[in-house]
Amino acid sequence: MKSVLMIGQSNMAGRGFIDEVPMICNERIQMLRNGRWQMMTEPINYDRPVSGIGLAGSFAAMWCMENEEEKIGLVPCAEGGSLLNDWAVDKTLFKHAVSQAKFAMQDSELIGILWHQGENDSSGGSYQSYYEKFQLIVETLRYELNVPEVPLVIGGLGDFLGKSGFGLNCTEYELVNHELQKFASEQNNTYFVTAEELTCNPDGIHMNAISQRRFGIRYYEAFSKRNNVLSPMGNEMELLNLCINRPYTKSEKMYLVMMEFALGKMTYEMYVEKLGAL
Amino acid sequence: MKSVLMIGQSNMAGRGFIDEVPMICNERIQMLRNGRWQMMTEPINYDRPVSGIGLAGSFAAMWCMENEEEKIGLVPCAEGGSLLNDWAVDKTLFKHAVSQAKFAMQDSELIGILWHQGENDSSGGSYQSYYEKFQLIVETLRYELNVPEVPLVIGGLGDFLGKSGFGLNCTEYELVNHELQKFASEQNNTYFVTAEELTCNPDGIHMNAISQRRFGIRYYEAFSKRNNVLSPMGNEMELLNLCINRPYTKSEKMYLVMMEFALGKMTYEMYVEKLGAL
Repeated sequence: MKSVLMIGQSNMAGRGFIDEVPMICNERIQMLRNGRWQMMTEPINYDRPVSGIGLAGSFAAMWCMENEEEKIGLVPCAEGGSLLNDWAVDKTLFKHAVSQAKFAMQDSELIGILWHQGENDSSGGSYQSYYEKFQLIVETLRYELNVPEVPLVIGGLGDFLGKSGFGLNCTEYELVNHELQKFASEQNNTYFVTAEELTCNPDGIHMNAISQRRFGIRYYEAFSKRNNVLSPMGNEMELLNLCINRPYTKSEKMYLVMMEFALGKMTYEMYVEKLGAL
Repeated sequence: MKSVLMIGQSNMAGRGFIDEVPMICNERIQMLRNGRWQMMTEPINYDRPVSGIGLAGSFAAMWCMENEEEKIGLVPCAEGGSLLNDWAVDKTLFKHAVSQAKFAMQDSELIGILWHQGENDSSGGSYQSYYEKFQLIVETLRYELNVPEVPLVIGGLGDFLGKSGFGLNCTEYELVNHELQKFASEQNNTYFVTAEELTCNPDGIHMNAISQRRFGIRYYEAFSKRNNVLSPMGNEMELLNLCINRPYTKSEKMYLVMMEFALGKMTYEMYVEKLGAL
């Protein structure tokens, strides 16, 4: 089993509205809960009651399409509203992510780190020290997890920032993007993914569900090709369709029926009948 | 700040349907996410996509009513479907709960441990070794967290077990209850709470939302009086009403408006207007 660590702030956690995109149901995608693996259902990174679709779902779906027979486990550690300073190596978020990754690594190989953060550092000149601070975080994380060469994929901030709602204050997002891109171009095993063309929820700060799905495809492209993705890919919607709209396995069908039953949507008799018909 | 650790299986995590009971919104109730505190919103213990109302919400609401000016933090570590053996001191669930409690104890005093488990040990004679195994778990947990006298409240299994749906196989639940009650009567700082009169979801195994609310009141009674609760309390509904239906503070009203906005239920203009009217 392989695993991937998710760190950053709300757009890594995911705030896309669940009902706006087709669900991802794939028994080869797992997520960490209480230090153990279980089949993934979104929201994966439940840092807030408003958690929803993030980029890790479609990233993992693409991974599964290109890595048959293997499983991938997602380790959700992103925290809404966190500053880069909150991720300093002596702070709780960093320590928590290390502890979660170590639980994951009990029985999986960590093959990637996904980072998306910076909205809360898009004002007041924070971008000036972003590179240096982030470098220490990344180096220490790779060192503490004993994965010195593990690929790190970092995504850019959306062009919807600085314009409305909660995004209004993020006036320096382009300067943060510049630092992130510079970081990826100079540091080993680090790749930058553009957020160009991606759009947001009415709150002006959180990527909407379909944009998160497209972002996940770009993150996977950067991860698998070991290359920056500096402009939108022409075939994002096509790839999404390919990796998500697949026939369900028997276990996946059983999982979905069981969930419906657990949520009180059918009687026990109907449940037994539906299971029997699979 | 005080804190309480939640461990056990699904009925500690909570599977009551969210829309069946009034919500609990109280800025003095916090929950642990990513090792940090935030205001509590149910589901607190998000171990599964079907997580819902558990007993910790009303437990904390009662605590707040009787402990003015103080905050209480809930540390969710319960795992659906876990066996007592899964909680052995060398297993992931135990280690994970210890790690989460330590994050909580960075800035809070752990004042209680809430346990509910046993459905998955209600067959095949598992009850025979329950006492001995549980004793080692509890002793080691108190030792590792350096809280040798911390109160432990353990709840009984529901009388709906062994009858239908997913509860059908729990034929020995009364024998487990006997062990739990014996444990509380013999061990220091340990209290038993009956599940008498509580009812379940259509799945035959998970307590419904209102029963979880009542169970939380009983857990709090045992915790605060340092006594077993061996039969239902006559005033459970009254106490629930008292501790939940209170006027919201300004912060709570802001929290609710912000959540609605984040979920796309109003425009930014409406959001600003609503906030301004508070």
